[in-house]
Formats: sequence, structure tokens, C-alpha cells
Amino acid sequence: MFRSMLKLQKKGLLRFTLLTLFFMNIVEAAGAVTAEEAMFTVNNTWMMVATFLVFIMHLGFATLESGLMRSKNTVNILFKNVAIVAIGLLTYAICGFNLMYPGDAWLLGKCFGFAGFGIEAPLGAAGLINYADGQYTYWTDFLFQGMFAATAATIVSGAVAERIKLHSFLIFSLLYVGLVYPIVGSWKWGGGWLDGIGFYDFAGSTLVHSVGGWAALAGVIVLGPRLGKYSSAGIKAIPGHNMPLATIGVFLLWLGWFGFNGGSVLSADPGKVSFVLVTTSLAAAAGIIGAMFTSDIVQKKPDLSMVLNGSLAGLVGITASADTVSVLSSIIIGGISGCLVVITVIFIDAKLKLDDPVGALSVHLVCGIWGTLAVGIFSQNPDHSVLIQLIGIIAYGLVSFVSAWVLFMGIKMILGIRVSAEEELRGLDIGEHAMEAYAGFQIFTND
Amino acid sequence: MFRSMLKLQKKGLLRFTLLTLFFMNIVEAAGAVTAEEAMFTVNNTWMMVATFLVFIMHLGFATLESGLMRSKNTVNILFKNVAIVAIGLLTYAICGFNLMYPGDAWLLGKCFGFAGFGIEAPLGAAGLINYADGQYTYWTDFLFQGMFAATAATIVSGAVAERIKLHSFLIFSLLYVGLVYPIVGSWKWGGGWLDGIGFYDFAGSTLVHSVGGWAALAGVIVLGPRLGKYSSAGIKAIPGHNMPLATIGVFLLWLGWFGFNGGSVLSADPGKVSFVLVTTSLAAAAGIIGAMFTSDIVQKKPDLSMVLNGSLAGLVGITASADTVSVLSSIIIGGISGCLVVITVIFIDAKLKLDDPVGALSVHLVCGIWGTLAVGIFSQNPDHSVLIQLIGIIAYGLVSFVSAWVLFMGIKMILGIRVSAEEELRGLDIGEHAMEAYAGFQIFTND
Amino acid sequence: MFRSMLKLQKKGLLRFTLLTLFFMNIVEAAGAVTAEEAMFTVNNTWMMVATFLVFIMHLGFATLESGLMRSKNTVNILFKNVAIVAIGLLTYAICGFNLMYPGDAWLLGKCFGFAGFGIEAPLGAAGLINYADGQYTYWTDFLFQGMFAATAATIVSGAVAERIKLHSFLIFSLLYVGLVYPIVGSWKWGGGWLDGIGFYDFAGSTLVHSVGGWAALAGVIVLGPRLGKYSSAGIKAIPGHNMPLATIGVFLLWLGWFGFNGGSVLSADPGKVSFVLVTTSLAAAAGIIGAMFTSDIVQKKPDLSMVLNGSLAGLVGITASADTVSVLSSIIIGGISGCLVVITVIFIDAKLKLDDPVGALSVHLVCGIWGTLAVGIFSQNPDHSVLIQLIGIIAYGLVSFVSAWVLFMGIKMILGIRVSAEEELRGLDIGEHAMEAYAGFQIFTND
Repeated sequence: MFRSMLKLQKKGLLRFTLLTLFFMNIVEAAGAVTAEEAMFTVNNTWMMVATFLVFIMHLGFATLESGLMRSKNTVNILFKNVAIVAIGLLTYAICGFNLMYPGDAWLLGKCFGFAGFGIEAPLGAAGLINYADGQYTYWTDFLFQGMFAATAATIVSGAVAERIKLHSFLIFSLLYVGLVYPIVGSWKWGGGWLDGIGFYDFAGSTLVHSVGGWAALAGVIVLGPRLGKYSSAGIKAIPGHNMPLATIGVFLLWLGWFGFNGGSVLSADPGKVSFVLVTTSLAAAAGIIGAMFTSDIVQKKPDLSMVLNGSLAGLVGITASADTVSVLSSIIIGGISGCLVVITVIFIDAKLKLDDPVGALSVHLVCGIWGTLAVGIFSQNPDHSVLIQLIGIIAYGLVSFVSAWVLFMGIKMILGIRVSAEEELRGLDIGEHAMEAYAGFQIFTND
Repeated sequence: MFRSMLKLQKKGLLRFTLLTLFFMNIVEAAGAVTAEEAMFTVNNTWMMVATFLVFIMHLGFATLESGLMRSKNTVNILFKNVAIVAIGLLTYAICGFNLMYPGDAWLLGKCFGFAGFGIEAPLGAAGLINYADGQYTYWTDFLFQGMFAATAATIVSGAVAERIKLHSFLIFSLLYVGLVYPIVGSWKWGGGWLDGIGFYDFAGSTLVHSVGGWAALAGVIVLGPRLGKYSSAGIKAIPGHNMPLATIGVFLLWLGWFGFNGGSVLSADPGKVSFVLVTTSLAAAAGIIGAMFTSDIVQKKPDLSMVLNGSLAGLVGITASADTVSVLSSIIIGGISGCLVVITVIFIDAKLKLDDPVGALSVHLVCGIWGTLAVGIFSQNPDHSVLIQLIGIIAYGLVSFVSAWVLFMGIKMILGIRVSAEEELRGLDIGEHAMEAYAGFQIFTND
Repeated sequence: MFRSMLKLQKKGLLRFTLLTLFFMNIVEAAGAVTAEEAMFTVNNTWMMVATFLVFIMHLGFATLESGLMRSKNTVNILFKNVAIVAIGLLTYAICGFNLMYPGDAWLLGKCFGFAGFGIEAPLGAAGLINYADGQYTYWTDFLFQGMFAATAATIVSGAVAERIKLHSFLIFSLLYVGLVYPIVGSWKWGGGWLDGIGFYDFAGSTLVHSVGGWAALAGVIVLGPRLGKYSSAGIKAIPGHNMPLATIGVFLLWLGWFGFNGGSVLSADPGKVSFVLVTTSLAAAAGIIGAMFTSDIVQKKPDLSMVLNGSLAGLVGITASADTVSVLSSIIIGGISGCLVVITVIFIDAKLKLDDPVGALSVHLVCGIWGTLAVGIFSQNPDHSVLIQLIGIIAYGLVSFVSAWVLFMGIKMILGIRVSAEEELRGLDIGEHAMEAYAGFQIFTND
């Protein structure tokens, strides 16, 4: 992607843009409009629309996760999803954006840089127009990237749900979204060392989904399973309490992915963006079909939550390569993702005995890795290689998992991380918030 | 509409576009941007936004239909709506798009054509820019039309719900969306025989809604009513289980209609698109008011589900004529649609004894026909005539109904089409999916 | 804002636009496109997208309000929210638009003007292109403003819920949205007297939210509290019945605010719009954090409904000043709004004993006033003053409150305004609509 470095290094373009700006000022005085100005405006408008779509993914996560959990923990998961958006945006404004896109301000090789606290348009009022290769404004850039940032923590929230302490989770999110996500993100999208060696991740199979997924894995290990999940009596299935809510979540996430992938073109380039939308949609569709067949065969009856996760699996899988593979490859990548998600949900639960209430490990971590590898396998660009992709996967895996594990362990030692058994049985809604999600409804006590 | 023929026949424009492309390549080398390129980009951006809006209609249908049904069949209807999107997009990529827009490849008069399997941008990378009258790319075209295609099957899913076998329905959808919808669609939007005689259907009152509605009618007849619906004791009202869900559905469908009708202008033309949005919105509003008064009078108390269907009725009614009638006419068309939907829902249930759980026959078939006729009555274009509109309505009705009936009967003979009485009473969620929609909630057994 | 006056007074620009139009006709004959035309198209496209976003706020209000109420009044509140959209759009077409933007047709000082019944593009077909400073079409203008209009009545619907008669509320809405809202709106956005003295309200902290909030206050006073709310036994907390629904509402409202504030720039100006999106988002985020801390301290446990209202409070608070304050100020304004909403919800309930089921008075009235004052405090424009802002707040407060009070009292005397105690206890869903929101679910009788 090479996002911010591009901005600084393309001196020629910058000069041209400055000239354009100068010219625009002249013709504006006469009331006229240039084609460059019109193109900048449509590019910026598209990026704002993409920002809205990524924003609505947070509602998608909130509804998907709460639908796949028990009703007694619904207020808690909704609360976390609302709080994460706020924490994500504010920390990104305070330091995240300038950690992720340090420009020239590298402090430690091309591994860590920081361009200072706060956000400010680079050249004042004029800078608003003159920013980012003439594609969109500084403010659009910040908001689009800020909406991405919060999704990494949201991925974690599903996996650790129904047993983590509210304040402990919020502090983890603050640190992971505010520091870890942008620092590792800078390695590729900020023009860091992985970008230098040719690692490719179009819209974040690794940078967003795996980075979230590795943290989810650390959280699941540190927390342990929900009470009663694995016992001598066997493995207890804990069904979600509201499938319409979960389905709303998946449709909204797919919708949001149009902005997540489509916006990652970083302009409204008609050919590129519309091609990305097609590969994205066909991968999601193939993920559904793949999960449907696999679930029908493995589980005898087609399971709605598997099919929902199949669509997300296809979307995560195509995210790294949406602009660089053929239409047919996108269907294959998505279809394999759909199969993978069903098999690994069962494997992680039954064999590894890792308790992930929403299947986030399969969707975001497994398919994030698969999608990143798929770049090396299916890309039409000969510069992409499986080996380099593997290096990136391992680097992100190590640093994300270790830092998340350290954060979770530190929080566990200082604040504690798990609610009491009594609170877990009664539900976190009463325990953490003194509220019920569905006041008035008769609900079976689900232990 | 004349969509794809226009593309091929407007040689002059094509030549101009090629010249533009040539010129664009020159100026692009110098880093400049042309007004044509900016306009192409905004047109394409608008069409992508319209595509997203049509996509979200699938969530609208999923929530509307599940809300208007009993909780025991909720997982099943959600599953179908998710699967249909996948089936619709993939079959449209495999053959649907090239059946609907065969270009010159007519094989049987102007009734049936086929431009080959798969999707591919016509001129390679350059073709991405040079496609479709300079309005939007090949990929945008495919995705916008593909999102339309799946809606036809979704309309059926509501009417046949609570009793049809899952696999039988999915096979029907595959064949109806993959073959019937695009072939009959080619008659008008592909430049076929009905387009030749001057039939007009702006965005699909007939081509989408009635085509879906006729198939719904065939399905309802082949399946018969739900158990206990019509008995010697009279007609049993079967209320929906979740009215907030149904309301979410209607708002999302209205939102989607901004893309369905607004995108059918096939460019971002400011005057045309914004006018279409106004007629669309006022028809929906008038449909609400029409249904509210009719329901208040006929049913004594204003019924929310009638008002929700009234809004959809207004939207279906205006779909054929949104760009060609006056503002006042749009209010009249929508208002009449709102009255029609209340009266025909009651008539179809009480007199015809056709069991349609969501009122799809009234909304999509009755108002689809009414909207198509309304073109002949209210259009400001003197070329439109009631007679030609009637010919189109009859042609689409015959072929859609008969082919849907043949498909349903064939599936019935080979696979069976209706779940067992035992499964129907217990609910399709357990029977077809071994899941509950609302695990933990106490729900009355509703037989 | 100065919206419509600007259109008429900028003669120079108008002349230029006419010339452009003339030129465009010439070059269009040759198949070419001008940069002005491309820019007009992107501006108009953005405003249409903003219109969709404001539309979806109505779904946000419908889900938020129904989620925060008891299940027995759910159909009723959904019905009102659907009906209000229809009433709002139709009355705005009949008279509202021309009351709010009278152009030169002032009849009583700069306090009341009317440009006639109905909507019509000013110069016929050509006028569609030539309207509104070359930014967007007449039809876009109407629809964007029409979507705003209905929100004012929706704000009222939450505060008066669970006890008001359906028909009485609909008649109030008809008169308030059709007459009061556009007349007082004309004082500022129509270029009236408050615009003349320099009052500033960017997107409607006062013109929309306080105008709705004052009417809500009048309604709450005229109606009195819900049965059993305040008794000798103390104050009864009446929790909402569906927190996922309320959370969906808040996310959709935030999404809609991107159009509410972003569209109020009245063009796609990249720097201005994207800056407004950033201040809007950060204020919402700060509102969440402010409400979270305040609720955690005051109520001991963090309350989800407070945090949801905190986000809306931040959004209402920033609405008047989103384009004119610094990023840091937007965070301060939003954070204070989040604190304010928690404190005043408790104060209004416990001290003033005004029964507002959804907290609309705190969100829309208190934070609307605060946001309007904040212009005077934080604006970077030296022309803005606290004193002038106060004059505007008082003027709007007086006229909105008194006219709403007169309307409610008049309706009370003629039709009655409150349902019977029996109906209130049983719920308005059965009483007004003979329907249940959740047929089949076992729900505790909540008296």
C-alpha cells in the first residue's frame, strides 16, 4: 500500500498538485472550476462514503456478537462495542494516526516511528485541498483510518465475551488500539520494513483481521473457557440467543466491506474500485456456498451461524488480494474460506478446546492467514511471493500475539481479568451494568 | 431502458469515447485530468453507491419476512435470504448477466440470446474505463444488475415461507434467478422484442417485482396453505412474531429503493436522479397514508403491518414510472398502491384463500401490475400507451407464471416440495436446521 | 446558513451559471463535458447521499425509541415513526418547503414568508441544472430539507410515548412539522431576521433539535407522567425492553448524522465536509466517554442507555458548530454534552418529575441549547457571539414551546390527548392497533 510514504516521496506529484492548487486559486477567483478540482472532490466524496461504510461495520460487529451470545450478556457486549468506537477514534486522534503513518519520523529502523501527538492538517486551510496525492483531504484520511483502527479491538471483544471484566477489557482495547495496532500497521501501510521487502496486504487480511485475531487468541488462552463449556460430561454447545440480530450483523458487515476494501483503493478510480467490489462480493458469496455445503455434510443439517460466518470468512479471505487476483480466483479464495471456517470452528472447539463464543478465531485469524497466503498463490502480480507473505504473517503473528498476551497478563495481575463465577452464571448484564437486555421477557435461566 | 443494445449501437458515442480514452491517455501521461474522466468517475461512484443500496434491500427482505412470520420459522427464512444473495450473484456471474444482456448474440428472434459463460471486461484493462457509454465500468454494471437479480427470488421466499423444503426452494431459486429472470429481462432491458414495441418499465415494476410476484403465486398454489390456516372454523390470522424487525425491513427497503430507482437512471445525471428520488419518496409516503386510511376504515384500527406494506406498495407502484410522471402523479400512484395493498391482502386471504404469509402477492404482483399500467395512464411521454403496457404485463405474466409453475411442479415430483406436517407444526428451524432463533426465550407453542 | 437568500441574491453567480448552462448546451451537442458540469454532478451526488443518511435517521429514532420503551407500546411507537416520515414529506411538499425558504416572498417582516403551495423546479427542465448556486438541483434541495423536517416531530414522539392517543399525536405532528417547524426555520436558514443579526446554527442544534425538544417539553407537561411513575412509594424506574434495538438506533443515528452535518455544508467541498465529519465523530466519541465516566461515578455501574444517549448528546451538541470550531473544541463540546445528558436525565426525572421515557429532553433540548451556546464560546469565527446565540435560543424557545403548548392544549380540548388508564396499563399496541409486537413470546405483565 505504501500509503503515507508515497505521499511524501512523490515529489513530482506534489509539485504538480501545488501548481494545480495555484491554478485553482486563480480560476476560482473567476468562478470557474477545473477538472482536477472536480476529480479531487469525487475522490474525496468516495472516500467519505467508504468511511461511513467502515463505521457501520461497528454496528455489524455489535449485532453479530450479541446475537451469537446468551441474552444475559447482551448489554455487556453492546456496551463494549459502543465504547470501542469511542476509544478507537479518540486514541487514533491522540497518537494512533501518527504512529501508523509516521512519514519521515522513523525512530527505530523502519519498525517504529511517531509524528507527534494530535491531528492537524499539514498546511493549514490550503493543506486541506493539497493533501494525499490529490485524492482526498487530511481529515478524510484520518477518519477512514480511524474507523479501521477500532475494528481490530472489536474482533477481540467477541472471542473473550461472556467472562471478561468490563474495565479490564476496555483498558486492553485502549492500549491495543492506541499503540500495538498502529505500530505494527506502520510496518506495511506506513511504509515500514515489511513494505520495503514487498509484503502485500491490500486492505488488511493480516494488518486488521489477523492482528485482531492473534489478540483474540491470547485473550481466549489467558481467560480460559466459559464455565461448564468443557467438562467430563463433554463439550457443551452454547447457542446464540438472537439469530435475526446475528444476521443483521453479517449483512451490515458485508455492506461495510464495500468501504473497507473499496476504500482501500484510496481513490474513486472507476476500474480499480468496481473490480474490487466484484471480487469482494463473489468471495463473500462463495464463502456462503462453501460453508453451506461443508456444514450440510459435516453437521448433517445446514447451520445458519456457520453460513453467516462463511460469508465473513470469504470477506476476510479476499481482503488481502481483492485488487490483484482474477474473478475466478476470488471465487476460489472465498469458497475455500467458507470450508475452512466450518472445519476450524469445530476443530478449535472440539480438539483445541479453545472457547471462542462467536468463531472469531476461525473467521479473522485462520481466514486472515489464508487470505494473506492467497496473495502469494493467486496474485496476477509476479512480484508477490508466498515466501514474503509467510514472513509477514509470522512477523505480525509473533508481535501481535506476544504483545496481546503481555497486556492481558499484566491486566490480569493488576486488576484481575475474569468476573466471578457467580457473576458469570448470573450474566454480565446484571453484574457489570445492573441492567437487563430484554426487560419483561421470560427467559430460561441458561447456566 | 435499452441498456446493452444502446451500448453497442451508439457507434458515434463509442467512437467519441475511444477518442476520449486516447486523449485521456495522453493527458494522463502528463499527470492531468479531463472533465470527461471526472464525470465518468462520479457517474461510476454513484452507480456503486446505488449498488450498495440495492444490496442492503436483501437485509430489508430478510428482516421484513422474518418479522412477519412465526418465531419457529425464523432461522429458516434468514437462511434462505442469505443463501439467495450468494446463489443470485454466482449464477449471474456464470450465465445470468450474459443471458440478460446478450448484445448482438440473439439466438431466437429477440426473445432469447446468450453472450457466453462468465464475466470479463470487454477490452481488458482499458475496457474498464471505456465501457457503457462512458457512464460506468463493466464491473459496476455487473454488480448493480447482479444485486437486482437476487431480489426476484427473495420476493418468492416470503410467500412460500413456513412450509417449503429448504433444498427444494434453493433449487427453484437457482433456476429461476439463473435462467428465467435474465431471459425475460432481456426482452426489455437487454433490448429484446418488448423494448422494440415501446413497452416501458423504468426500474422494474414488472421486470423485477411482477416477475417475482408471479413465481410467488405459482409457489403458493403448488404448496397450498399452511396447516390450520383455512378450516371449517374459518380463517385463522397468523400474526408476525417481531414487529420491530419488520419495521427495520421496511425502512431498509425504502433506503434500498433510492438505489433501485435512482441507480436505474444509469448515470449520476443530477436532474434525472434527484427527480426520481423525489417521486420515489413521495409515492412511498402516499402509500403509507393510503394504507393508513384504508386500514383505519376497513379494519377499524390502523394495522402496522398494513402501513408497512403500504410503503412498499407505493415503492413498487412508482418503480415503472418514477422518471416519467409528474410529482402529483407520483403521489396519486403511491396513494392508490397503498389502498390496493390493504384491499387485496384481505381479498387474497379471505376470498381467494391463497396463503401468503407476508403479503408479497399484493405488494409485488398487484402493485407491480398497477405500476406498469400507471405508466400508460400518467406518463408525460406521449409514446407510452396503456395498450403496449398491457401487452408487456400479459407476456411477462404468462411466461413467468408458467415457468415458475413448471419448476415448482418438477421439483415437487422429483424431490418433494413441502415439509412433513410434523415438521411444519414444530417449525422449520428445528426441522431443517436443528436450531432455534431465540434460544433461552420462553415462547408459546404456536401451532 | 443563509441558504435560500443566497440563491437569489448572488446575481453574479447566477449569471455565471446561466452562461455555463448555455456553454454546456453547446458542448453537450458535441458530446463533451465541462469541469463545471462534473463538479455540479459530484456536489449533487454528495447531497443525495446525505439525504439518504438523514432518511435512515428515522429508522434510528424508531429503533432507539422502541428499544427504550416497554414491549406493550412497541407497535404504537413504530407506527408513529413510520407515519411521521410520510406526514413530514407530504406536508413539506405541500407547504413546508415554501414556508421555510420563502425567497423574496416575505409577508411579515423577516418573520413569516410563503412562496406558494406545491413544489416545482423554478425554470422547468433547464432549471434542474441551473439551481442552487450550481451545487445541486431543486429536487435534491427539497428532499434533503424534507428529510430534516420530519425529524423534529420524531423527537417529540419519544418523550410523549406510552400514553398519548395515536390520532392526537398524528394531528399534532401534521401541524408542527407542516407549519411551526418551517416558519421558525425560515428565521435563520430561510434568510430571516435571526440570520440578519448574525445568529449561527450550522446544522440545527436549535433549529431542529431544540425546536423538537421544546415541543417535547410542552407535550410532557400537558400529558403528565405515565401511570405509576411518580407515587408516594417513590420514583419507579421503567426500563426499556430491547437494548439491542436501542443500540441499533444509536449507531444508525450516528451514521445519519454524517449526512445531517456533512450535508449541511451544502456542497461536497472536500475540506469543509471532511472536517465536519471529523468534529462530528470526535464529539460523538467524547460524548460516549463523558457519559461513561459520569454514569460510572453517579450510578456506580456504567449504564448502557446513558452511554447511548451520551453519543447522541455529543452529536446534538456539535451540530451547531461542527464547521467552525477546532478539533480540540469539538472533543470538549462532546464530552461536556455526555456529562450533561447523564446529570440532566437524572435531574429531570428525580427533581422536576417530568416523565420523558427516552431522555429526549436531555439529549435534544438541553444539549441543543448547550451546542448553540458553544458556538459563541468556541467558534473560530470572531463574528459569533454568546449574546446573539442567547437571543436565538430564547426566541426559538418561546415560540416553539408556546405554539406546541397551544397545539397540544387545543387537541386535548377537542379530541382528548391521553389514552384511558385501562388502555395505558394494557398497552397501546392492543388499545390503538389491536396487535402485539412480539406474538408468541411470554412477556411479564409490566404495569
